[in-house]
Amino acid sequence: MVAIEFTEIGKLFSSDVRDGTAVSIRGWVYRIRKLKDKVFFLLRDSSGVIQCVVDKNEEGIWEKVEPLTIESSVTVKGVLKYDKRAPGGREVHVKDIMVVHYAEPFPITEDAVRSESEYLLDVRHLWIRSSYMTSILKIRHTVFEAIHEYFRKNGFYEVQAPMFITAAVEGGATLFQVDYFGRKGVYLTQSSQFYLEALIYALEKVYTIAPSFRAEKSRSRRHLSEFWHAEAEVAWYSLKDILRIEEELVAYIIKKVVDEREKELKTLGRNVDILIKESELPFYRITYDEALEILKRKGFEVEWGDDFGADEERALVSEFDKPVFVIGFPEACKAFYHRNDPERPEVTLSADLLAPEGYGEIIGGGERIYDKDELVKKIKRFGLDPKDYEWYIDLRRYGSVPHSGFGLGVDRLVMWICGLKHIRDAIPFPRDIRRVYP
Amino acid sequence: MVAIEFTEIGKLFSSDVRDGTAVSIRGWVYRIRKLKDKVFFLLRDSSGVIQCVVDKNEEGIWEKVEPLTIESSVTVKGVLKYDKRAPGGREVHVKDIMVVHYAEPFPITEDAVRSESEYLLDVRHLWIRSSYMTSILKIRHTVFEAIHEYFRKNGFYEVQAPMFITAAVEGGATLFQVDYFGRKGVYLTQSSQFYLEALIYALEKVYTIAPSFRAEKSRSRRHLSEFWHAEAEVAWYSLKDILRIEEELVAYIIKKVVDEREKELKTLGRNVDILIKESELPFYRITYDEALEILKRKGFEVEWGDDFGADEERALVSEFDKPVFVIGFPEACKAFYHRNDPERPEVTLSADLLAPEGYGEIIGGGERIYDKDELVKKIKRFGLDPKDYEWYIDLRRYGSVPHSGFGLGVDRLVMWICGLKHIRDAIPFPRDIRRVYP
Repeated sequence: MVAIEFTEIGKLFSSDVRDGTAVSIRGWVYRIRKLKDKVFFLLRDSSGVIQCVVDKNEEGIWEKVEPLTIESSVTVKGVLKYDKRAPGGREVHVKDIMVVHYAEPFPITEDAVRSESEYLLDVRHLWIRSSYMTSILKIRHTVFEAIHEYFRKNGFYEVQAPMFITAAVEGGATLFQVDYFGRKGVYLTQSSQFYLEALIYALEKVYTIAPSFRAEKSRSRRHLSEFWHAEAEVAWYSLKDILRIEEELVAYIIKKVVDEREKELKTLGRNVDILIKESELPFYRITYDEALEILKRKGFEVEWGDDFGADEERALVSEFDKPVFVIGFPEACKAFYHRNDPERPEVTLSADLLAPEGYGEIIGGGERIYDKDELVKKIKRFGLDPKDYEWYIDLRRYGSVPHSGFGLGVDRLVMWICGLKHIRDAIPFPRDIRRVYP
Repeated sequence: MVAIEFTEIGKLFSSDVRDGTAVSIRGWVYRIRKLKDKVFFLLRDSSGVIQCVVDKNEEGIWEKVEPLTIESSVTVKGVLKYDKRAPGGREVHVKDIMVVHYAEPFPITEDAVRSESEYLLDVRHLWIRSSYMTSILKIRHTVFEAIHEYFRKNGFYEVQAPMFITAAVEGGATLFQVDYFGRKGVYLTQSSQFYLEALIYALEKVYTIAPSFRAEKSRSRRHLSEFWHAEAEVAWYSLKDILRIEEELVAYIIKKVVDEREKELKTLGRNVDILIKESELPFYRITYDEALEILKRKGFEVEWGDDFGADEERALVSEFDKPVFVIGFPEACKAFYHRNDPERPEVTLSADLLAPEGYGEIIGGGERIYDKDELVKKIKRFGLDPKDYEWYIDLRRYGSVPHSGFGLGVDRLVMWICGLKHIRDAIPFPRDIRRVYP
């Protein structure tokens, strides 16, 4: 490799790069327009896109540029010129070019893009180069950074829970079984929650960002079989305390994305003002009972005790211009570990956070049962075997404390922030019932 | 829950907390000493430990304190007193106590701890509360933070690769098979590398921290079946470029741990001066051939072309007081994707980074093959089927560029930094051939 300093293309548009500056850049050919005596091509790198111009008179260059194809990789030496006709008002007059690799004809056609074809998933390893996918990936990067920042600034310890587990957190129906050295009964984790609960007795405030796995058989626009899960658990916290953390976290993430990724949000056509409004604190808080009233008013037939489906969630949030907490779900709607309200034992001290604009539940959380007998009884009431949860019950034997926690579906959050139609575009290589390739 | 402001125990030792200050604290009972007319107990929270004293004359308190057990959870109101006889020179005279939960007799005995019994793994969910494990967990937290910081400061994008894959990165023998909706041929990822390679065409410099899975059948002190893997891939980078990133990253991590976790390193008995010396840049660089010479001199029978085992690695690094890169492994030692040296095709442009003090390989990396025909030939030469690697080969069809990358075993690094005998203590809930519980 040559010891040249290359400039990031994005930096060529800064005000301190003057007309006439000699520059070296490298990247991939994004568009080409070939005229009789000139070739224009757009060159992209990870930071931006600039127009490059080659004149037929440029000896030794023309013959390299004539056969250029979309996505070919090149390094370019040239002179930066201000030109109002060029995109962004600047272009590079090419003085030398090295074609690192002439790309074969790129298989993604504009038709495929327009029709949002399934084919884009077959060639996902190439489609991620598009400005659409790259913008999402940059926003996703900032979302992950914001999550780490928020938790660390607030005194949380980052921890990691195992992926291989032996007992379901969220019900057995969506477990993936693994052949573990020939052994049966080993599954992939659905949530790190139980392990985070163990860790609060050492570290009090803990979080993790890790994959979780759910064998979702539905072909929904909102589910993946493998998703990134930001989970937190806090000793001594009540439901009220944990809701404050949840809304602060979400608002922090959106603020950071709006501050640092405005360009990418605009590329995606996302209305930034709506996002800013949607992240104003506090978020709305309604009870499950109030939610039911709203739904009935809107003509939904939901009985007390029913969980809400996607349609109900969408109808509900259409009433609100910010995320809304639905608090106090009936016992049967929620997994066994949720603490029942001592004042009203038929409901749990739980809450879902629903994103606006119909993106659905992004966080589920609440208080956990911390009394041993209460936990064992509820495990049995749910038709489960306390033996499968021995170590989890143990946590209530040795200095148990009230505690609360939550799980945030990071891909779902990215879907909302980016305004995507389908969750699969929120993650580089999505996995669902139909797809494990590429 | 009561609306009291509790002070972190660690903060009670700060110089601005004066003798006689009224304090409220909460946590778990760490040690108890019961005398006729006094009870001393150590109270721990996530930030520290302080001695609490209860006098028999304190009405309404004595009867609560008498039955106290190890690991019971309590909240305490009291007065902070300076006292040279107390650990750390301060103690709390208890004026009120609420026992949140009287713990059952704690099952971890001092015998179990002294003998480093297998039992400590059976009750891992409780053993993590020990000052030994908590110190490691805090250092691990700082290691993860340092990795994110280093990459982000250096212009890398954080990305996530899928856990479900269909083709081996590192050889088929260590793949875990998953029952994927009844479908065969789906495995857990061994490395995110191939996906990071796809992503450099969009983002150029990418990294990820994620679990990787290897069905390691050996019962080694250095292997887990599930480990945390920090991987990076960079467009346009040569072997030399990527080695610089690798050593800077490791030095950055150690510096941060030494700066922020000195207390925890000391709790573990780790010699901080040795760590500081070991993280001085640059690290050593020797060739595979030179490594072979050293090993022969030390009486090892290794042929040119052999890979090094744990014994060889230990013997090798005993010559060095800092980490050492071993550069240019023979083709057969390394996976197919490593680029062969054009000047000497029998060796690859690869390097392992070996940690000092016998902790073994912590990073493997190097240049990747970027020419399509070269890659297809090598896949065949390795007895593999190019059809299984179609999308990976595709990356060499559309604007391929030279690139390099590496994978860092984060748990192995934590093991070295903490000076642990066994890698299982570097991760909260270790998984190996024998263990998936708790």
